[in-house]
Order: sequence, then C-alpha cells, then structure tokens
Amino acid sequence: MPSLSQDLKNAMADAASETEKMMAFLLPEAGIAERKLFDAMRYGSLNGGKRLRPFLLTCSAYLFGVNDRSALRAASAVEFVHCYSLIHDDLPAMDNSDLRRGYPTVHKKFDDATAILAGDALLTYAFEILSNPETHEDPNVRCSLVTALAKASGANGMVGGQMLDLIAETTSLDIGAITRLQRMKTGELIAVSCEMGAILGKASPPQRNALRAYAHDLGLAFQIIDDLLDAEGNEAKTGKPVQRDEKAGKATFVSILGAERARAQANLLSDQAARHLGVFEGRAKHLEQVARFVVEREF
Amino acid sequence: MPSLSQDLKNAMADAASETEKMMAFLLPEAGIAERKLFDAMRYGSLNGGKRLRPFLLTCSAYLFGVNDRSALRAASAVEFVHCYSLIHDDLPAMDNSDLRRGYPTVHKKFDDATAILAGDALLTYAFEILSNPETHEDPNVRCSLVTALAKASGANGMVGGQMLDLIAETTSLDIGAITRLQRMKTGELIAVSCEMGAILGKASPPQRNALRAYAHDLGLAFQIIDDLLDAEGNEAKTGKPVQRDEKAGKATFVSILGAERARAQANLLSDQAARHLGVFEGRAKHLEQVARFVVEREF
Repeated sequence: MPSLSQDLKNAMADAASETEKMMAFLLPEAGIAERKLFDAMRYGSLNGGKRLRPFLLTCSAYLFGVNDRSALRAASAVEFVHCYSLIHDDLPAMDNSDLRRGYPTVHKKFDDATAILAGDALLTYAFEILSNPETHEDPNVRCSLVTALAKASGANGMVGGQMLDLIAETTSLDIGAITRLQRMKTGELIAVSCEMGAILGKASPPQRNALRAYAHDLGLAFQIIDDLLDAEGNEAKTGKPVQRDEKAGKATFVSILGAERARAQANLLSDQAARHLGVFEGRAKHLEQVARFVVEREF
Repeated sequence: MPSLSQDLKNAMADAASETEKMMAFLLPEAGIAERKLFDAMRYGSLNGGKRLRPFLLTCSAYLFGVNDRSALRAASAVEFVHCYSLIHDDLPAMDNSDLRRGYPTVHKKFDDATAILAGDALLTYAFEILSNPETHEDPNVRCSLVTALAKASGANGMVGGQMLDLIAETTSLDIGAITRLQRMKTGELIAVSCEMGAILGKASPPQRNALRAYAHDLGLAFQIIDDLLDAEGNEAKTGKPVQRDEKAGKATFVSILGAERARAQANLLSDQAARHLGVFEGRAKHLEQVARFVVEREF
C-alpha cells in the first residue's frame, strides 16, 4: 500500500487549521460570571483534533464551488456536535474517561456539571450557526442543514448509537447488531458531513447519493480501524486509554472477526468507498485519499 | 384578587392535552434494541407537566391565526427543550433531585447515562421538528424558529443561566446578578415561547416586541413565585422537594428581598406584563389571565 501523500496531509492540516480559526471565532471568550461555561466549551472543542468531519464537509462542498465561509461555518457546526458527544461520552456516568487526545477530559479539567452544560451548549450552538443567514443565503438550504444534522446526531443516529453502545456492555451482539450500532454511533455523523457539503452546493441527487454511499463505507472502515487501534494500539499514539473494549468485555468488529479479517474488511470498504466517487470523474481526489487514510492511520 | 377564572383553567388544560397528544405523536415508541432511550425520552417529557410554555406559544400563535398543527409542533419543540433541561438539571452532578412532579426523576427511573442521552436526544429532536416543512411552509419562518430557540436555550440563555445557578451555590450574588441569572435560566425560554408564536404568525415588530416584553415580565414574576413556593411551599403540592435553596445557602429573590417584598414585586411584574398586551386591544385575554395565574399558583 502506498503511504499517505504529502498532498493529503497538507490539505487536512489546512482544513483543520481553517476550521479551528472559524470555531474560535464562533466561540468568543466571555468576560462574564459564567465564563467557566465558555472556557469549557472552548477547552472541549479547540483541542487540535483531527477534524476529519470538517475535512469531509469542506472537500464535499468545494466539489460544488461553495464559498469558504459557508463551508467552514457548517464544518464548525458538525465539529461542535462531534465535540459535545465526546464530552458527554467521557463523563463518569458514561465511559468514565480521564484522558482525551492526551489531555484531561472536560469533566476532569472542570467538573461533571460544567461538562454536561458545555456539551449541551455546543450542541445547541451548532443549530444556531446553521440557521444563521451567514451560513447560506437560501433558507431552504439552512433548514435542510438543520434537519440533516439533527437526524444524524439524534435518537435515530449518534445518540441512539451511544445508547446501543451502553447496552452492548451487558448484552452480546452479533455482527449485524454491531454494524448497526457503529453506523449510528459514528457513521451517521461522518455521512452527514459529506451530505452537508452536497446540501450547501445544491448537488444533484446522484451526486448526493454518491457522497452518502462513500461516507457510509468510509465510516464503517473508520470504526473498524478504531477497534483495531483500541485492541492493538498504543496509548501514546492514540492519546487515549487502549484495550478498553476488551476490558469491558464488549463485542467489537475485532473480537468477532479477529484482527486479520477485520483489517481485510476495512480495506475492502475503503476501496469500495473510493469507487463511489467515480461520478466526480477524478475531481474528488482528496476524498479518495481520505478513504485510504482512514485505514492507514495509527492514531 | 379575583381567583383564576374557570375559562383560563379550561384553556390551559386543553392546550396541555393537545400539546401532549402532539408530543406523543412526535415521540413514537420504538420496538428496537435501544428502546430504553425512547422510553426515557417519553418518561421525561410525557409526564403531565403544566405545559406553561406550550400554552404561551399557542395563545400567541392564535392571535395571528396560525393553524393548530404549526402551533402545536412548535409548542412541542419548546416543551422538549424544557423537559431536556429538567432531566439534565436533576442529575446527581447537578441538582441531584430524586423527585419531579411527584415521580422519580429520569436518572432514578432509568440510570444516569440514559438520562444524559435522553436529554441530548430531546434537545436535538426539537430542532429537527422546527426545521421540518410540516411545522411551517415558509423556510424563513422555520429558520427563525430554530435561531430563536437555540439562542434562548444556549450558552447565552438557559444553559448559561444554569451555569450561573451552579456558581451561585458558592458565590454570593446581588439582586442584579440574580435577576440576570433568572432571566437566562427560565426567562429566555418563556420569552421565546411567546416570540415563536409571533414568528409563526409573521407578527409586526410592535406586536412581537409587545409579546417579548410581556413574556419578560411574566418570566421574572414566575421565578419569584417559584422561589416563594420553594421557601414556603409544601412538597405534596409542588411535587418536588422544597426549601432546597435555603438548605444550599443559595441567594434567591426571597432571601434578599424577604417574602413580602418578593410577592409585591411579583404582583407588580404581573400587572406590568398584562399592560404590554394593550396593543392587542383585548384579544389576548388568555395571556392576560396567565399573568395573573403565575402569581396565584400554588404549585
């Protein structure tokens, strides 16, 4: 397998940096009594994550000539939702994680109540950003963005997946149930990142479907590699505790398929994802490279 | 003071019943693995609350001839946000309440993790409902609803107020700071309930401003009475533990002003609220009665 091209690394770093600038702009510091809340919102989101979802969103948007500001505002909204989910997921009542990307999690740095509220506020803010005319001049586009993000992150999407994940700790799941769990827990938000780029760009239905299919396969490949990194990985590289699933006795792609078949499956999904981009006739180079990246990454 | 008219009681009961029907319709039961999440969402929201915010929203909407379905969908969205905030507020990391409206709180009935996720899902669902064309055919109206609700319930509104409330447990606040805290914590969501009725009805700016001013005074009167009920009230009537603020050493309108001046202030605000409705030339009868209701209620 060829290694990741320098070109993709640069593009991802650029998109991450541009998205973080927009996120920091959208989250002004507060010189007020409740500034602890704003500090926790910033701490939990401006933390140098990979910004995979913003990268997918901006790459998709640029396929249709969407302007920077629109793409980055929508990318920030998706990333705020991703960050809120990590803040709540790390709470003692949920995964009880002390470490995230090598730093104390929000509830360790602040306290549990502040972490709950910071998550709530980031989620709420995402919808305020999307409904603002600064994000797109067409109110139909803004409403479609709100609908798509809410569906992907709500009870039938990400939050439902987190519920299934909790249930998985005490119930044994088969490969079909795990696939559904992962599609909901991480796949839907990854898929909607690509879809929101298509919505911003008023893409044709075949283009939008191609991006959805791409993102669906990508999301599953991403999660299989996550499981592999948890099973084999090293804490210094991933920046979070490893072998948590095995310790919790939780079924994963790796525990059911074994490491070798899991990796083969991830590679298959990665190739399949890239093929869905054929409809863009070579113009979706970065998205093709991302499909490779998610199976090659070590963090 | 005249007692509450039967007419208002009937109107509030009708609106509560219609809103609950819409809420139940919008929250279908799930026959799936993660049904615990849906059960918790239903348990935490279909619980016979007063539905004050839906009543304010529908009364405001009907002033402008808005149809039932639009008004009730928006009313359900506001009430889901109110319910999510109660679920998170009751958590051990926050107020640690075991009882709400006479029943075990969501985290007592289910568990902490499920309560966190059910709150997250209700908040997210509120925005999905508002952005859906079923709520209003004009996408500008739908976007305005999303913006208004997100602002009222986010870091500069309800969630910010909850943060201030936590800070108030360890910091002594003056009457100005308490007024700001209460305006954010409960006032903004009450105000936006009236405002969303105006948005649905494409009200003129003077009408919209009148409703905002009304709701602002109403919200403050409502909170002062809440403090009085907590200080003097009886657990059987309020359905929740009382004298919590005093036990926590928290400054309230009552602890600073004393019960008598606090009640006088609430009555003053109630009268002032009713006067803002003059612009509707007697057509806002129910809203006028609500201004009286909030200071007369015993629960």
